[in-house]
Parts: sequence; C-alpha cells; structure tokens
Amino acid sequence: MVEAWLIAPIAALISIVVGLYYYRYVEKQDSGTERMREISDAIRVGARAFLRREYTVLFMFVGVISVLLLIFLPTPIWTGTPLNNVALMLAYIFGSSFSALAGFLGLTIATKANAKVANGAQQGLNKAFPIGFRGGAVMGFSVVGIGLLGISIVYFLTGDPEMVLGFSFGASALALFAKAGGGIYTKTADISADLVGKVELDLPEDDPRNPAVIADNVGDNVGDVAGMGADLFDSYVASIVAVMILGAALSLNFGLQYIQIPLVFAGMGIFASIIGSFTVRVSKNGNPGSALNLGTYITCVIFGVLTAIATYYLGYDWRIWGAAAIGLVAGVIIGVTTDYFTSEDKAPVMKTAEASKSGPAINIITGFSYGLRSIILPLIGIGIAAAVSYKLLEPLGGLSFGVFGISMAAIGMLSIVGLTVSNDAYGPIVDNAKGVAEQSGLSEEVIAITDKLDAAGNTAKAITKGFAIGAAGLTVISLLAAFKELAESALRAANPTLPITDPKVVVDFSFLNPMVLLGVLIGLAIPAVFSAMLMLGVGRNAERMIAEIRRQFREIPGLKEGKPGVKPDYAKCVDIATVGAIRELLPASVVIIVATLVVGFVGGITALGGFLAGAILSSLLLALLMSNAGGLWDNAKKLIETGAYGGKGSDAHKAAVVGDTVGDPFKDTAGPSLNTMITVMSLVASLFAALIVQYNLLGMLGL
Amino acid sequence: MVEAWLIAPIAALISIVVGLYYYRYVEKQDSGTERMREISDAIRVGARAFLRREYTVLFMFVGVISVLLLIFLPTPIWTGTPLNNVALMLAYIFGSSFSALAGFLGLTIATKANAKVANGAQQGLNKAFPIGFRGGAVMGFSVVGIGLLGISIVYFLTGDPEMVLGFSFGASALALFAKAGGGIYTKTADISADLVGKVELDLPEDDPRNPAVIADNVGDNVGDVAGMGADLFDSYVASIVAVMILGAALSLNFGLQYIQIPLVFAGMGIFASIIGSFTVRVSKNGNPGSALNLGTYITCVIFGVLTAIATYYLGYDWRIWGAAAIGLVAGVIIGVTTDYFTSEDKAPVMKTAEASKSGPAINIITGFSYGLRSIILPLIGIGIAAAVSYKLLEPLGGLSFGVFGISMAAIGMLSIVGLTVSNDAYGPIVDNAKGVAEQSGLSEEVIAITDKLDAAGNTAKAITKGFAIGAAGLTVISLLAAFKELAESALRAANPTLPITDPKVVVDFSFLNPMVLLGVLIGLAIPAVFSAMLMLGVGRNAERMIAEIRRQFREIPGLKEGKPGVKPDYAKCVDIATVGAIRELLPASVVIIVATLVVGFVGGITALGGFLAGAILSSLLLALLMSNAGGLWDNAKKLIETGAYGGKGSDAHKAAVVGDTVGDPFKDTAGPSLNTMITVMSLVASLFAALIVQYNLLGMLGL
Repeated sequence: MVEAWLIAPIAALISIVVGLYYYRYVEKQDSGTERMREISDAIRVGARAFLRREYTVLFMFVGVISVLLLIFLPTPIWTGTPLNNVALMLAYIFGSSFSALAGFLGLTIATKANAKVANGAQQGLNKAFPIGFRGGAVMGFSVVGIGLLGISIVYFLTGDPEMVLGFSFGASALALFAKAGGGIYTKTADISADLVGKVELDLPEDDPRNPAVIADNVGDNVGDVAGMGADLFDSYVASIVAVMILGAALSLNFGLQYIQIPLVFAGMGIFASIIGSFTVRVSKNGNPGSALNLGTYITCVIFGVLTAIATYYLGYDWRIWGAAAIGLVAGVIIGVTTDYFTSEDKAPVMKTAEASKSGPAINIITGFSYGLRSIILPLIGIGIAAAVSYKLLEPLGGLSFGVFGISMAAIGMLSIVGLTVSNDAYGPIVDNAKGVAEQSGLSEEVIAITDKLDAAGNTAKAITKGFAIGAAGLTVISLLAAFKELAESALRAANPTLPITDPKVVVDFSFLNPMVLLGVLIGLAIPAVFSAMLMLGVGRNAERMIAEIRRQFREIPGLKEGKPGVKPDYAKCVDIATVGAIRELLPASVVIIVATLVVGFVGGITALGGFLAGAILSSLLLALLMSNAGGLWDNAKKLIETGAYGGKGSDAHKAAVVGDTVGDPFKDTAGPSLNTMITVMSLVASLFAALIVQYNLLGMLGL
Repeated sequence: MVEAWLIAPIAALISIVVGLYYYRYVEKQDSGTERMREISDAIRVGARAFLRREYTVLFMFVGVISVLLLIFLPTPIWTGTPLNNVALMLAYIFGSSFSALAGFLGLTIATKANAKVANGAQQGLNKAFPIGFRGGAVMGFSVVGIGLLGISIVYFLTGDPEMVLGFSFGASALALFAKAGGGIYTKTADISADLVGKVELDLPEDDPRNPAVIADNVGDNVGDVAGMGADLFDSYVASIVAVMILGAALSLNFGLQYIQIPLVFAGMGIFASIIGSFTVRVSKNGNPGSALNLGTYITCVIFGVLTAIATYYLGYDWRIWGAAAIGLVAGVIIGVTTDYFTSEDKAPVMKTAEASKSGPAINIITGFSYGLRSIILPLIGIGIAAAVSYKLLEPLGGLSFGVFGISMAAIGMLSIVGLTVSNDAYGPIVDNAKGVAEQSGLSEEVIAITDKLDAAGNTAKAITKGFAIGAAGLTVISLLAAFKELAESALRAANPTLPITDPKVVVDFSFLNPMVLLGVLIGLAIPAVFSAMLMLGVGRNAERMIAEIRRQFREIPGLKEGKPGVKPDYAKCVDIATVGAIRELLPASVVIIVATLVVGFVGGITALGGFLAGAILSSLLLALLMSNAGGLWDNAKKLIETGAYGGKGSDAHKAAVVGDTVGDPFKDTAGPSLNTMITVMSLVASLFAALIVQYNLLGMLGL
C-alpha cells in the first residue's frame, strides 16, 4: 500500500474545492448600503496595496535567496549535480508562491466578507455568523489544501524529502515577511489610532473622524488574516516535512511508509476538518463561541476515527496513531489552561484590572508577572506530550523512533489546522464587520450582534491558540531532530570510514560541550534581539503615524468636531504604515538568517545545533510570555470597559489602556513572529548542514 | 606544597581585620547635626527591625531544613554514618549564620555611614568620598573574609568538598531570603513613595512629608546592602565550592592541588582587593566614579600578578592561570558593553527618553525592547569565556579539565569580589547620604556634592555589574558540571559493576533525550514563575502601602501643606513593608526548592539535569533583560530630569516615571534574585543527587 500517500493530494484538491465553494457562498451575500461597500472597498484597497508592496520586496528577497540556493545547495553547483540545485531552487520558489497565493486568497475574501457580515447582522445572528465563519474557512481550506498539494507535488516529482525542505523554506521565508511585516503594520495603525483617537481626543473606537481608522482596519486583515495564514501555512508544511525527514531515516531500514505516514495523516486531517466545518452552525439566539469550539471538538474526534481506520487498513503500528492522538489531546489541554490567564472572569485578568487603580506602572508589572507565570503550564504540556510520544515509539527501535514519535504528536496537533485557521480567520472578519457597522451608522442592535460575533472569536481563539502553541513547540523540536539527522548524514558522508557511533559523526547536544554551550548562549539571545527589532520598528513607525494623525486633526478644519462632509486623509496613514512596516521587517529577517549562517560557518555543526536549541528555548519562553501577557492586558482593559473598577474613562481605564498598548506589539507583532522565526532558522540550518560540515572556520583551524 | 591552601584562611582573617579597620574609621567620623543623627537612626532602626523579623522567619526555615538534612543527607540517617549527617547539618547552619553575620555587619555600618557622608560633604568631596567607600568596604571585606574563612574551616575539619557544599547551601538559602525579601521591601517602599509622593502630589524625592520616605531609605539598605551582600557572599562561596568539587574529581588521579587551587586563587584575590582598596582616593575636584573604576582595574592587575607568582612557585599549570585571567578580562568587557545600554549618553537611553514623548506605553515598549537587545553581548561574552577556558584546559585531560577551566574562569571573575562589593555597597550609602542631606535641610551645595557621589556609584556599578553577570553565568555552569560530577559518582556507586562509560552511569544533557527535554522545558519556566511571584508580591505590597500613604495625607491635618511640627507616621510604613516582604518571599522560596525536589524524585537524575540546564538558561535571559531594562528606564527618566525632551514635569517625564516604576522591581527585585535562585536550585540538586539516584518514581516504575 505504498500508494496510500496519494490520499494527501486528493484530500488537498478536495480542500481547495471546498475553499472555492465557501468563497462563492460568501461572494453571493449582499454587501449592504453604498457606505458599507465604500468602507469595505477602502479596506480591501489598502490591504491589497500593502500586500502588493510587500510581495514586491519579498520577491526580490526570494530572488536573491534563489540565486544563492542555486549556487550552493544542496551542494555547490560546481561539485556535481546542477540539476539538484535547480530542483531545490524551484521547490523554494514554489513554496514561496504557494504561500503567497494562500495569503492573497484569504485576504481577498476576508476584506469582502466584513461588510457582508455587517449586513447579515441586520437580519440576525444566525444569518451573519455563517458568512463570518465561511469567510474564515476560505482561508483555512486554502492554506491546508495548497500546502499539502505543494508538498505532494514536490514529493511526487523528486521522491526526496530534502527537496520538500526547500519548499518548506520558501513558505517560511514568505511567512516571516508576512507575519512580521503584517504584525508591524497592524500594531502601528492600532497603537497610533488609539493613542491619538482614544487617549488624547476621547473618540470612540473605529470613529470615522480618525485618520487612522482605515489603516487600523486594514491592519487587522494584513496582520491577522494574511500574516496568520502564512504563519500556519508555514508551520503546517514544516511539521510535515520534519516528520518526513525523520521518517526517511527510518525508511532505510523499515520501509517507505515512514515517509508517507505524515502525508496520510495530514490527508485525514483535511477530511476531518471539512466534515467538521459543515457542522458549525448557530441558531438565532445561539452562542457562536460554543458553535466554533464544538466544531473543533467534533473535528478532533473525526480525525481520531479516520486515522484509526487508516492505521488499521494500512497496517501501521498503533503506537504511531497513539502519538498523534497524544498531540491532539495535549493541544486541547494546553488551550484550556492557557485560557485561564486571559479570561475576563479569572484571577489574572481581574487582578490586573484591579491593579490598574494604582496606575499604569502597577498594571504593567501585574500583567507582565501573570504573563511570566502563564508559561509554565503550556511548557509542561509540550514537555509531557514530547516525552510520552517519544517513550511510546521508542520501543519500536530506539532514539530515531522516539523523535519520530514527537514529530507525529506535532502532526496530530496540526492536522486539523484547516478548521483552526477557519476559526482564527473568523476573528478579524467579524472584528472588521463591527468596524464597518460602526462607521456606516448601523443601529445599536446590529452593532450588538457584531459585538457578540466578535466575542465568539476570542473564545474560539483560546483553544486554537493552544493548538498553535503546542504544535509550534513540538514542531521545532522535530525540526531540531531533523537537523540532527541531516547533519549526521552529512558527517557520515564526510567520514565514510568511521563507525556510525563515533563521536565525530554524531551531533552532540550536550549542554556541557563548550561549542554547544557557546551556541546555546548565543541562540538564547537571538529571539530576544529579533523581538526587539520588530517592536522598536512598531515604536518608530507609530511615532511617524502619530505625528501625521495629530497633523491632520490640527490642519483639517472641522475634522475634530465631525463637521459633515469633512473627511480625513485615510490613504496617507495607510501609506505610512505600509512603507514603515516593510522598512522595519527587512533587517530583522536578514539578521536571523545571517546569524544562523555565521554561527554555522564559524563555529561548525555542533555550535549550530546548540544555537538552534538555545533559540528554540528562548523563543518558546518569549512567545508564550508575550502572547499571554498581551492577551491579558487587552482583556483587563475590556473588563474595565464593562464598568468594573471605575469603568470607561476612569483613571484605572487610562492605566489599562497603557497596558493594552504595551501588549499590542507583544501579542500581535513579536510573540507570533517568533514561531516563524524559529522555523526559518531551523530550515536554514538543515539546508546548509552538509555545506557547514565541509566548510567551517573553527573546524578548518583544527579547534 | 599541599599546605599552600592555608593562604586562604590567612587571607580571610586579614580581610576581616581590614574590614574592622574600615569599620572603626567610619565609626570615628562625625554624624552631623541632631536632625541628621535622628534620620540616620530612624533608618537604622527600621533596617534592623526588618532584619530581625526576617532573620526570625529565616531561622525557622533554617531549622526545618536542618532537620531534613539531618535525616536524609548525605545518605538517610538509618543507612549508615549518622556523623556525616550531623556534620552536613552543622556546615549548613554554619553557612547560614556566617552569611547572616556578613549581612548584619554591612547593614549596620552602612546605616551609620549615610549621615557621616552627608556631614563630610559639608567639608568637600574629598572628605565625604572615603567615608562612603570605606563604609562599603566594611561590607566588601566582611563578605569575602567571612566567606572564605567559613569554607576553610569546613574544609579543614572534614577535608570533604561535599561538606563545603552544605556550607554553601546554608549561605544560599539565606541569600535567597535576604535578596528576595530585601528586594520586595525596597521596591514596595520606593514605588509607593514615588507614586503617591511624586506622581500624585508632586513632592520632590526624599521629601520629609512623605510617610514612606524612611521606609524608602531603609529599603535601599536592606535591599541593596544586606541583600546584595548576602547574594555575593553566596555567589562567591558557590563559585569556590563548584570548582572544589570539580577539582576533587581530578584530584583522584592528579593530586590534591586541584581541590586547593581555588582556595589559593581566592586568597590572592583578597590580597589584591585589599591593596586595591587602599589606592581608591579622590582629590577635592576629582571624579569619584573614575576613582572607583581605577581601583577595580588596579585590583585586576594585582590579582593577575599575584596569581602568576603563586602559579610559578606552586608549580600549577599555566593554563589554569590563563582560565582565571580570561574570566577577569571577560568580566571587564561584559561590564563595558552592558554599560552601553544603560548610559545616559548612548542611544538606548536617549531613544527611550525620546519615546516618552509619545506616552508611557511607547516608553515601556522601547525600553523593554532595548532590554531584550542588551542580552546578546553578555551572553556571547559568557559563552566565549566558557568555551575558551574549556578549550584551554581540555588538553590537560579532556572534559573534566575543560569544565574545571570554566569554573576557574568564574573564580577569576569573583576573586576580586572584595573590591567590587565595596564599590557596590558604596552606592546605597551615598544615595542615603543624599536623602539625609535633603531631609535635614543642608545647603544646595552640599546636596550637589552628594549628587556627584551618587552618580559615581552608578558609574562604578556598570563595571561591577559586568563581573556579577559574567561570574553568575560561569558559576551556574560550573554548578551544573558539579551536579553532573556528584550525580555520576552516585550512579557509579549504585551500579558498581558497570564500566564508567556505560550510558546508565553517565548524566546525559542531550537536548533530544525525552527526559532531559521534559526537564529543560519545566526548568525554563521556573525562573519566570519565581520572578512573577516576587513582582506580584511587590505589587500587592505596594497597593497596601499606597493606601496607607494616601490615608496619612488625607487624615493628618497639615501634612500635605508641610505645616511645621506635623510629621507623618513613618513607622507604620516601615511596618507594612516589612510584614509584606516576609509574607511574599516565603512562597517563592519554597516553590523553587520543592520544584527541584519534585522534578528529581519523580523524573530522576536525567530530568533533574535538564531541569537545571533549562532554569539556568532562562534565568540568564530574564536576569539580563530585567536588570538592563530597569537600569535603562531609570536613566531615561533621569535624562529627562536634566531638562531633555521637555524636562521635569512634562508629559514625557510622567511617561518616563511610569517606565522607571515598572523597572524598579525588574532591576531590584526579580532580576538580581534570579542569580541566588539558580544557585539554590543547583545546590539542592547536587545535595540530593545521591538520594535521587536511589529513589525516583519513574525509575522505580521502570520508565
């Protein structure tokens, strides 16, 4: 049954068809009044403008990398088989393009769906909800469909998981840009709009007088939709490629199935997600948040059943199924425990809100502290999932099977990503719908419905975020194992006479090896530096934009007072955010790639392994801290806005707004970009492993 | 020349004599007017009250631990040699008492010296400066003298480095309390005094109307003097014991000298510090900051020369001297590079100050980002120092010599701690002197001199902090190596028939071992949780104190207006800070000890090793981040207060005050406590290693 893996491309194609079906469904809905259409168009135009510029820069970047790949990888072009170099380069370009396509599709429909949801809300919750969900599902099913299709094509053409690594690298490089660039954009706009609009002038959220309001809405789409889509595309592909590479090592002795199991499981995940997506419904007075979560749980169960059937019929070892199941369960548990730290009715958010009464500093200290505390449960969750799935598979044949088990747990978590992305992309769509409703003066009743839809997005996010966090953790561990695998195979090739247990052909990750230690310590710092560069970018960009907003309020007569017919210059703000985001993301992206290569080519493969391990650990720590603290500050502010601890306009509220603003780049720029960053670093290290084994400074100096 | 190590107790005794000499020098100086004496007395009474209560709780804690040690360590008392258990317990109690004594002495003289410095300032800078420096030197020389004397006594009586470990654990347990408790106290008082006094009522710093002003001054002493003293006592002892344990392993094959080299080098360090301390002088218009730094550099050179002489005459390998020298040089370099991030005339502080113009949120984001960026250079410095000192000694005989090299680099950094503590303790003394001068209405001119003295403290701190950071990093790595050494010796004892290269008797630190991985991930979270507990403690405590300060201003008639004769109730604030600090530090201290034991007794020695490694990495990251960000915010505020970016009272200044307040518990509570925390965890793990090898849940279940 070697052809069983063909289930993957079939599922991928079906997924794309389902995505198109949902696209047509959303497209058919009415966009409402002219004013609504106008706002929605402005958002789409702004978002596309951003994407166009970003993609332009990006394709130059891709071009440069392509040339480098062509010359140097998998082996320098002058050393042998140039065809391999061409193939790897094409796989890389292919990965970037597919990822860009998925992001573009998702963004297009999301920016159309917003007005349609707002319009649907006039006829009730049960009319608006499916437009929002299905708008998100277009993104969800494009991401998994296009991703898995791409992997299948590359694998079909080359039969070589290392080429799939090239595809994955293409996707990651794009994701890094999309996520980091989108993250800078969205927070520039958000912070600037809030600081001048809400804090200085006391305007409500989404007030059309605010020159940054369109940029803010655009930001939700380029950051949360396009960025998140590219990010999950990247994680999804990377998790599959990691397990394929680990499986390839096993397949030498145990058969081709180990390369293909992840493809089969991923295919089943798509089927489960599709079925699950059709069960997501809500009645007129129903709870949309529960509907989304119920869909997730149903999908999990279906995935468990489908993969069990596949395991039975294809004769896989049940332990492999067990590892995937552990991943799935761990994802849910991590989600539930993380939720505790960001829920409005739990101690962390309540205490932070209360602390706001003592001013912004105490709000920051309290929220940050709870953010620090929040990291322990997910880390324990990831650790236990990894250890158990390792121990479960270890009896099949030792360490290689053990790490294969960890990577299968990651597959388990990410397999239902079609559905989790749908839920995630639903969030910004309904958030924007609320914006459209407010800016076009729809009734309070309608706005209340969009509010309810928006809150549901946050509820669903808690669970899907658990999956994302857990999967990211397990995936990077698998990527580290894949790096070790590739590096050792290169070491063995370079030292063909040594036995395979010789220390010279084994990549040591021992903390007390001085080169590992040096690598670990440098690696530890990289995620911090990367986060800092992005956040400083947001700060710089926001300063430019704040100046512009203040200028408009000062110079455009009647704007502040809301004189009819007076409009701010939205486009100028969109432009500032766009140019600034692109300017700020490039150095950060270059730094991490260069740092990886420098550590490798100077310190050698051992230092590079330590470097990856250090970077993984610190990115897990910082990503959890920043995401959770950011979410917590946001909700503490929302809690106060419901009237608690003095309510809107009180000093406590002002303090909470400061916390929320600090949290913005934490949770929407730096935190989520770290995941992509570490994937890129791991892939670069894996791709260059063979070259680094041959050429590295300390090695050449005999140290 | 086996008796060469006796240089250590001799140097220790001389150090104590020098400390007493400086004590008498300070004691003889005039304390000024009655009002000055009164303030100084109030501070001393408050500080002693805190220490008395803290020590009371602490000795109960020590009592409980002593009983546990007596019963269980080094082996359960029923299994054989009860005398060993008694000895270890006594060493532990001895360590706690000696550390407490050093803290008490330092605190007593510091709280006397403040008024004397203020009084001296009336006669000029060159009169005041030596009082401040020598006041600090009492602490400096007590710490090293008492520490090294204690180690020598225990080693002399038992000849067993493991018993010295017990002494070190006693010192650490006390340091944890002193540092964390003092840190909570000082920041509770500081934040509360600032928030109500400066922000709400616009009172100047150290205004006598502020009910928290005495508590604030007390805090500087219990946090910065007693806490810091206990902390460095602990690091100093731990670094020596780590290298003694690693040396003990070498001494089996290579002679006793390897246990004793650290003692000899530490003795030389004391001589160097003493000579260096007598060179610290300043002329009437001199620069006290340069004087302090010059003293440090001179001491470094003398240390290099003295140890070279010892190396030559005692016939040690020059490579060992080289490792210590590398440590010393690395300490200076780390200090200089770290200084960049917290200097008022460098980009990070200036940009953060400028960002304050856009409000507190942008100030926080900017400062935090620079804090993140600041960690890379020290980490690279520690990594290179470790790798080079390892590689330098490795040729002598492999890995064991390599890690011995790392620990000698730590010794190099910490050997001149007598002088660096003097410089550090100088800071709070002159800071308090300024407070006394202001509260007792001395002239502007005198206050300007105390200001200049205060600024010098910050200059000196940059270099000494570099030493502290670097030494902490290298020491914890040595402690990890010492843990590995003790654990492996226990494993070999438990499996006497296995060859010493069998994986069963080797502690694996490989990142992809599932138990190591699980341990690493949990360990990664512990420093974060610990920091959070301390900072939340500060937050809670500050809330209580803010309420009290507000109450006093509300209820005491004439207080706010400064009516003559109306005094706030200082004692009440001192009391709140004291009770709160003790209440908040206990759970945090217990949590880390219990976590270490739980991971060990459940997961076994491999998980525990990973746990320590993870905790070390995350504590390095967080400690650097928090210390540097905190210092940066502080100086950004000070920069604005000099008139830049709007100056005092501007919106930018208000924003910078928020940043400074957030930074307070970062840099003075959580950041510096992490060092002690990790030492305690390492020592607990090392002490219990043998027991854990025999009894651990997963091992017993055969997993």
